[in-house]
Amino acid sequence: MSFKALFQSIVWNNSHLTILDQTYLPEREIYIDLISAEQVWEAIRKLRVRGAPAIGIAGAYGFCIGIRELPDHSDFQSFYREAGRISEYLNSSRPTAVNLSWALKRLMDMIYSNKDLPVNELKELALKTAVAIHDEDRRLCKAIGENGLELVPDNARILTHCNTGGLATGEFGTAFSVVLHAHSAGKLTKVWVDETRPLLQGARLTTWELQKAEIPFTLNIDSAAAFLMQQGLVDMIVVGADRITVNGDTANKIGTYSLAVIANAHSIPFYVAAPYSTIDLKLEKGSDIEIEERDEDEVTHFGSKRTAPKNVDVYNPAFDVTPNGLITAIITEKGIIRPEPDYRKQIMEKFA
Amino acid sequence: MSFKALFQSIVWNNSHLTILDQTYLPEREIYIDLISAEQVWEAIRKLRVRGAPAIGIAGAYGFCIGIRELPDHSDFQSFYREAGRISEYLNSSRPTAVNLSWALKRLMDMIYSNKDLPVNELKELALKTAVAIHDEDRRLCKAIGENGLELVPDNARILTHCNTGGLATGEFGTAFSVVLHAHSAGKLTKVWVDETRPLLQGARLTTWELQKAEIPFTLNIDSAAAFLMQQGLVDMIVVGADRITVNGDTANKIGTYSLAVIANAHSIPFYVAAPYSTIDLKLEKGSDIEIEERDEDEVTHFGSKRTAPKNVDVYNPAFDVTPNGLITAIITEKGIIRPEPDYRKQIMEKFA
Repeated sequence: MSFKALFQSIVWNNSHLTILDQTYLPEREIYIDLISAEQVWEAIRKLRVRGAPAIGIAGAYGFCIGIRELPDHSDFQSFYREAGRISEYLNSSRPTAVNLSWALKRLMDMIYSNKDLPVNELKELALKTAVAIHDEDRRLCKAIGENGLELVPDNARILTHCNTGGLATGEFGTAFSVVLHAHSAGKLTKVWVDETRPLLQGARLTTWELQKAEIPFTLNIDSAAAFLMQQGLVDMIVVGADRITVNGDTANKIGTYSLAVIANAHSIPFYVAAPYSTIDLKLEKGSDIEIEERDEDEVTHFGSKRTAPKNVDVYNPAFDVTPNGLITAIITEKGIIRPEPDYRKQIMEKFA
Repeated sequence: MSFKALFQSIVWNNSHLTILDQTYLPEREIYIDLISAEQVWEAIRKLRVRGAPAIGIAGAYGFCIGIRELPDHSDFQSFYREAGRISEYLNSSRPTAVNLSWALKRLMDMIYSNKDLPVNELKELALKTAVAIHDEDRRLCKAIGENGLELVPDNARILTHCNTGGLATGEFGTAFSVVLHAHSAGKLTKVWVDETRPLLQGARLTTWELQKAEIPFTLNIDSAAAFLMQQGLVDMIVVGADRITVNGDTANKIGTYSLAVIANAHSIPFYVAAPYSTIDLKLEKGSDIEIEERDEDEVTHFGSKRTAPKNVDVYNPAFDVTPNGLITAIITEKGIIRPEPDYRKQIMEKFA
């Protein structure tokens, strides 16, 4: 299959990381260089780079940048302890998406299992691992799109939420990869794009990606999704994920649970698309997931302009958890996971 | 019951209409004078005055301003024909809320049934009718709040959508009147305020009203409402209405249907509060209601700032229709209408 105008939002340039700063999209396409772990932390925290797989990749490179500053002549224990601090620091930038902690753990494990090597070689190994995580994500995302294709009916009108494309991953995307493959296979009529309040990742980013890929779409406010389903204008929903627990419960951008409930009420299939790095085998169920609360300003302001009165109380959870019972299937690089007999069994079989 | 800081958003000043221009809220409290039917049309169209009952009141005064220009010496047929044109013109400002056409029809009917009076007296009668519509709305809204009180549990956490208070009505509000009365009766713990995209009537206006009334509240994005319900943080939902058909189907601000579906899935009571002027006895069911589509800019821009790429397709319905089966009860000035045996029977008994 061929795809239009794919792009790279994360590029490793030998000594530093270059990212497409998503906070300027869609108005301006600005790439910034990150030359310290602190800059990578800030870029993740401020959503300059975002999307569960993408922050795993960026965090991995950030770790390599961070450990580069550690002395080559230190003993392993000192190096490992300091690397651990850098890992914990980067991991603190955003709590909900598991891919970040997964990537950092993979790097730390790799270092530990090569403890007999000199520090400079461990640094090189870490960088190779970061590059491998990045390359692997591209392959995983492509496989997700290929596997999801069979779930897409002819003339499909697919609704999606938030942003799950090349901006949120190494390339292709997760839910977006299913859209890309459906379009390429001639099965797609259009995409409905939830604008995705409060930060408008749908309106700002997914529309930008769809335009680049020349895929037809219509933008709608989040709360119109139910009306679209009521009117029979949506054939399936596919979203990404920030963390999937062993029982299939899925944390994703706030509003996902809302969509899942409404899809269920209209008997519209609701799919989650994610690679194995999003599955958290340490957590049994959704209520174990820490939900990030973000700043009130995201809701009370638009840019610098205030849109609510002063001194209002705001609740701004960035994610919600969709229980497994509302998920028709989970699309992974290893195939489609269905709820029968239960997600747990299949997740353990495929990923444990 | 006593209420804090109620205000008048629509004031008749003998020769012209003064309204609180809601497009400046919450930042600035600016009152503007409307001295022609055209200015009233523009104020309704641009949402300077909004809310189903409020646009009925404003439309009624606008009609009186419009017919004032007609010659006093014209014969009845000429006067009636020109008055009809003014009525149709004002009615074209917004199509979905029935209160506007209801108020205009009431004025035209009053004129017709007094056809033997001279034109100058008909103009006076029209103005008296407009004032009566305004006064009546205050009483209706107060009665709605009193009647709704019995539905509110102790320590209630009430979620609402859009704006239904004194800004949207003559005073007190519809759904907001239930909130006001619940607070005054000591039954209210807090209000959850849906921000209400795209125009943020919840974030801009309902918060402003709640602050004035010193009622505790928390602002949330619309798509977080499902998460709040899932977490057991919402005891009841009450919303206003723009048009209720004979079978109880209810058109209201986009996002209302979404809430109703989600409330139903969580067994949370979902109430509609509205006066008789919102009930359209000419329409049998929700699918008969014309749904206003508004400008794409409401979704693609914030003020003058673009938030989506250029040339995106947008679907921006301003309302949706909630089927009667999802409405736990309708709160009116004549008491609570319940779905058993069916809405139709009770609506006809009370309002036909």
